[in-house]
Amino acid sequence: MSAVDVVIMAAGKGTRMKSRTPKVLHRLGGRALLAHVVDSAAGLSPRRMIVVTGHGGDEVEAAARAFAAAAGLAGCESARQEPQLGTGHAVQQALPLLPDDGICLVLNGDVPLIESDTLRALVDTCAGERLALLTVRMPDPTGYGRIVREGDAVRAIVEHKDASESQRAIGEVYTGFMAAPNRLLRDWLSRLTNDNAQGEYYLTDVVQLAVRDGVAVAALQAADTLQVEGVNSPLQLAQLERALQRRRAEALMEQGVRLMDPARIDIRGRLQCAGDVEIDVNCVFEGEVSLGEGVRVGANCVIANARIEAGAVIQPFTHVQGERAGVEIGEGAEIGPFARLRPGARLGPQVHIGNFVEVKNSTLARGAKANHLAYLGDATVGERVNYGAGSITANYDGANKHRTVIEDDVHVGSNCVLVAPVTLGRGGTVGAGSTITKDTPPEALSVARGRQASIGGWQRPQKKK
Amino acid sequence: MSAVDVVIMAAGKGTRMKSRTPKVLHRLGGRALLAHVVDSAAGLSPRRMIVVTGHGGDEVEAAARAFAAAAGLAGCESARQEPQLGTGHAVQQALPLLPDDGICLVLNGDVPLIESDTLRALVDTCAGERLALLTVRMPDPTGYGRIVREGDAVRAIVEHKDASESQRAIGEVYTGFMAAPNRLLRDWLSRLTNDNAQGEYYLTDVVQLAVRDGVAVAALQAADTLQVEGVNSPLQLAQLERALQRRRAEALMEQGVRLMDPARIDIRGRLQCAGDVEIDVNCVFEGEVSLGEGVRVGANCVIANARIEAGAVIQPFTHVQGERAGVEIGEGAEIGPFARLRPGARLGPQVHIGNFVEVKNSTLARGAKANHLAYLGDATVGERVNYGAGSITANYDGANKHRTVIEDDVHVGSNCVLVAPVTLGRGGTVGAGSTITKDTPPEALSVARGRQASIGGWQRPQKKK
Amino acid sequence: MSAVDVVIMAAGKGTRMKSRTPKVLHRLGGRALLAHVVDSAAGLSPRRMIVVTGHGGDEVEAAARAFAAAAGLAGCESARQEPQLGTGHAVQQALPLLPDDGICLVLNGDVPLIESDTLRALVDTCAGERLALLTVRMPDPTGYGRIVREGDAVRAIVEHKDASESQRAIGEVYTGFMAAPNRLLRDWLSRLTNDNAQGEYYLTDVVQLAVRDGVAVAALQAADTLQVEGVNSPLQLAQLERALQRRRAEALMEQGVRLMDPARIDIRGRLQCAGDVEIDVNCVFEGEVSLGEGVRVGANCVIANARIEAGAVIQPFTHVQGERAGVEIGEGAEIGPFARLRPGARLGPQVHIGNFVEVKNSTLARGAKANHLAYLGDATVGERVNYGAGSITANYDGANKHRTVIEDDVHVGSNCVLVAPVTLGRGGTVGAGSTITKDTPPEALSVARGRQASIGGWQRPQKKK
Repeated sequence: MSAVDVVIMAAGKGTRMKSRTPKVLHRLGGRALLAHVVDSAAGLSPRRMIVVTGHGGDEVEAAARAFAAAAGLAGCESARQEPQLGTGHAVQQALPLLPDDGICLVLNGDVPLIESDTLRALVDTCAGERLALLTVRMPDPTGYGRIVREGDAVRAIVEHKDASESQRAIGEVYTGFMAAPNRLLRDWLSRLTNDNAQGEYYLTDVVQLAVRDGVAVAALQAADTLQVEGVNSPLQLAQLERALQRRRAEALMEQGVRLMDPARIDIRGRLQCAGDVEIDVNCVFEGEVSLGEGVRVGANCVIANARIEAGAVIQPFTHVQGERAGVEIGEGAEIGPFARLRPGARLGPQVHIGNFVEVKNSTLARGAKANHLAYLGDATVGERVNYGAGSITANYDGANKHRTVIEDDVHVGSNCVLVAPVTLGRGGTVGAGSTITKDTPPEALSVARGRQASIGGWQRPQKKK
Repeated sequence: MSAVDVVIMAAGKGTRMKSRTPKVLHRLGGRALLAHVVDSAAGLSPRRMIVVTGHGGDEVEAAARAFAAAAGLAGCESARQEPQLGTGHAVQQALPLLPDDGICLVLNGDVPLIESDTLRALVDTCAGERLALLTVRMPDPTGYGRIVREGDAVRAIVEHKDASESQRAIGEVYTGFMAAPNRLLRDWLSRLTNDNAQGEYYLTDVVQLAVRDGVAVAALQAADTLQVEGVNSPLQLAQLERALQRRRAEALMEQGVRLMDPARIDIRGRLQCAGDVEIDVNCVFEGEVSLGEGVRVGANCVIANARIEAGAVIQPFTHVQGERAGVEIGEGAEIGPFARLRPGARLGPQVHIGNFVEVKNSTLARGAKANHLAYLGDATVGERVNYGAGSITANYDGANKHRTVIEDDVHVGSNCVLVAPVTLGRGGTVGAGSTITKDTPPEALSVARGRQASIGGWQRPQKKK
Repeated sequence: MSAVDVVIMAAGKGTRMKSRTPKVLHRLGGRALLAHVVDSAAGLSPRRMIVVTGHGGDEVEAAARAFAAAAGLAGCESARQEPQLGTGHAVQQALPLLPDDGICLVLNGDVPLIESDTLRALVDTCAGERLALLTVRMPDPTGYGRIVREGDAVRAIVEHKDASESQRAIGEVYTGFMAAPNRLLRDWLSRLTNDNAQGEYYLTDVVQLAVRDGVAVAALQAADTLQVEGVNSPLQLAQLERALQRRRAEALMEQGVRLMDPARIDIRGRLQCAGDVEIDVNCVFEGEVSLGEGVRVGANCVIANARIEAGAVIQPFTHVQGERAGVEIGEGAEIGPFARLRPGARLGPQVHIGNFVEVKNSTLARGAKANHLAYLGDATVGERVNYGAGSITANYDGANKHRTVIEDDVHVGSNCVLVAPVTLGRGGTVGAGSTITKDTPPEALSVARGRQASIGGWQRPQKKK
């Protein structure tokens, strides 16, 4: 089979996006439009990947290289199109980078949901010798270029404004995707003219050149309009986002996940679910999240980059923000409501983290509990530790972060401060309201607080006028 | 009128649910599918209630008994169907439990929204002598068994695959619900054969036996497709959930409740509303919740098992979790945002509970306030008490829970700890930052804190490299 | 051009609303129905604005005056309609307040989304001499009064129940809006009869009087059904709310704002957005909110009356409640998750407010941080101040509020209380767990806490039976 070279058109400004961000870097489902396209192209293990850039060229090229690397490609080249003189002109810029052999697959950086299987079928349709066009059948094709056929063979793409009455009745339209032998494409592109109202070089003009040359033009019809929908405005982006999310929700349900409302879940990355997972309304998942068997996620949770083990229960209003360091939640743990787990929170089995509790860069061993209004930062917490309401690890001295070690079976009273670096010895108790600045011995009661005294007949302050 | 015996088919595995939970125990609107069916059947005050079980039989039977008891039925019998050889075979298992007189009403444990009125009408259609089928008219009946009539009389149920062109044009289909005299049903079931491709005994075959015997077969058309929709997959469950929620939302609005978005409310249990209640977007209600006149519930609240009196205002992001003990919120109280009320929170009139405050198993009398970052557990709080920001009741000594009593008009300063058991005497003041371990006298100022001192020219820690 | 006098019909009870609130005072998009109508009318700079009231008359009239004043009108008169004998009778009540010259524009207080441009066009259609009716074309006009024309001229409004078969086929219906010369309207109204089944005086009867008098009757067709939809029930109110919100969402996207879900945003007031703003799912905006360039608002935020400067990031679950005093969030600030900003919070550039932190009536200068579980009330906080986890300003002595001043570069340790009035001198440090009741010197370490001690072999409390 011939080698495949991919050309992705990504030079457009996207004026209707009304944004400083180049259009192809806007995000869908948590990833840049261009990243989706690069991923799908990578599924074909292409020989070369060439991105044609223009507006925001430096930014787009850097992003494309990162997307290609993340997708496991050896590299990603780019060709700058300045000025932008049409789609044919765009592909012309990539010609110097294309070998003479092989098949060129032309993709659009702003049509993100195209799938590898479809691209592979398009390359197969080309078969190393034909011009292959990806088409789609639309209920209302107004405005799109119609595919005019004679039998199976494509004779032309006719723009809407140039179409006759009978041609306008054609429901099959061109999608912007094509595959062609490099050799033929190079020749056709060299013969394009800009003899039209806009003065642009149109890639679609290669169809008539192919027909003229007696090269077969074949159309592959996409089964699925979503795969070929482009993004030109924030409204289109939002519509595609909802369609994508709806599809992801359906895929989850298909595999057995129970969703309370498929219209109110957002998955911006990859959500892996074991059996019998339940997800309540209005949750957002970002990055890489895995949910073990029987995990239940309550309403209104936002969870990013976390591994949650079997049987854990995530109460409503829980915010998990793993970022690079990730968050781990052990088997049977109970988290929330109103809990916040930050990067590096690693919770063992049966750990409880309750309301208004923040955990950051801390390890909690099996059965440890911090149930109420507390902060654990840069701490190592042993098994069965009970960390009292309102207690705080003072991990930051204004310049450096220090570690707090709480050994197994320690009970920390309410409203304590543990001034790091400090170690609380195994089995010890810290009295409520204590500020602990020195290590505490095991099995001891440690306190640091004032003596209680009362002054009778206390006159309260009076309301001033 | 004849006695009614109910047979509920609940043996199926529900393979497409991809769950360890038996299909009929999956929840819709907060209750098991089977519980909905039992409730509707209970509306007919049946003589006997028989659940035919199979997959997860022990679990389903225990649940069925509980649902029947909750619905006020004297009992619930069960018949085990193992192996499962079709719907006719399922009802055969119940025959030993059916008396010879009376009417048998056959229900499906996975068709949850059937209503008592419809069942009663079906029994009336049977009239103690006919075979009565519940049917429904569908816009697209593809795949369903068509009801073939001669005049009013039903002649046959024809499966889609066996239907002629003209039969396929029939929009009326069988729903799986039937009523028949026990006596006739017993006879027909004994004559069923499994001479078909699947080798199963089909309950629908009783129609041809009835026709052959000259017994009238009557069809009752359900007005409402929702009542007869079954659940076979997580997607269908989610769709039915949304339809049910939509219906509940409309019923609330019909009675005068203002909903900011009828598509974003979930009622999983019973929500009772007095006049002029307003509910903002994205709220979830679970269990038994009642809202008094003029109550306003802000966006993103999750409220379970609570009684909220007239004029109370629930700010956004409030989590009320009454469970068995319940939560009570008094007239004109103001709760939230970011408040959490747990089981046994009983708040009097005009009580204020503010942000990041947790209340559990505590009584607060009229006008008491805990407005900021606080925990009240196992406490009795008097009238007009002001409970300071960051203050905590240390109710748990690591082994036992103890009670804190705060008498009327006490002011507790900020960041205090009250180590239970302890009583703060009426009208007293507790100085900020105090850890109170002994009872405090009335009208006194009680403090327990260190003396303030300063060390000049303090050299801050420096950032380490 | 003739002077325009506006008459707004606002006397109805709105029985189907099932509410104590008069119908026209129910809120849509955060404002009373009547306020929307007054605003649109104000766009025409009318000479007189007359509200015809009945049910809840005092309340409606007071509200109308407030709405008129807010819309910049000199005044708002009212005419009481008691009893309510029909739409014609309603306008009759306003006649004593109408001069003989000028044009009368009749509006409905429960049709809120009418736009000024449409009203102006209706007045132009009247042209000081015609009876001008606002009409709309409906897909299903059942129940509405049909517009019967001869050529362009309107001959009659025929009620649905009186309409012939061919008249019922007419899709153009009357909307309830009309404009007519005061002089003619006064004459027609004086000739109305209540000779009909309901015994009411119908405003629509003026059409036949005009035709009889040879006065031209012209119809202006509204392009947009939303503008003429009335509110009669909570369901209709909710439907109109969603339609309005959908339109607001689309307007935001049109101007470049990225919305993660256009069906899950609520704007109840005015939301102004600079370029490249992103708003995640399920946010609610109330009152006047402005978002600077590149501001990102996370999921589930509720934001009212706030100005948020360029580059600020609002994390999920943030509650901003500016009310009258407003909230200001400076450039590049980071807020949330689970932050609450209350009236008078004024945050400078690069300020960080983290989880479970409340700020009220406080100014924070550039770069100040309060990242965890804290309360700042009535405080003035200097640049680069680090305000420790769990720390509280004790601003309320039970009778009066006092101010806390924290000068530049102060570090406040964890779980401190600052008992106001108090000033922490520039560059000072407050040790963790301190209760500060007196001013602290600059550059000093100030502490107020007990000495740490341990008691070995401490016997923990045992679980009682």
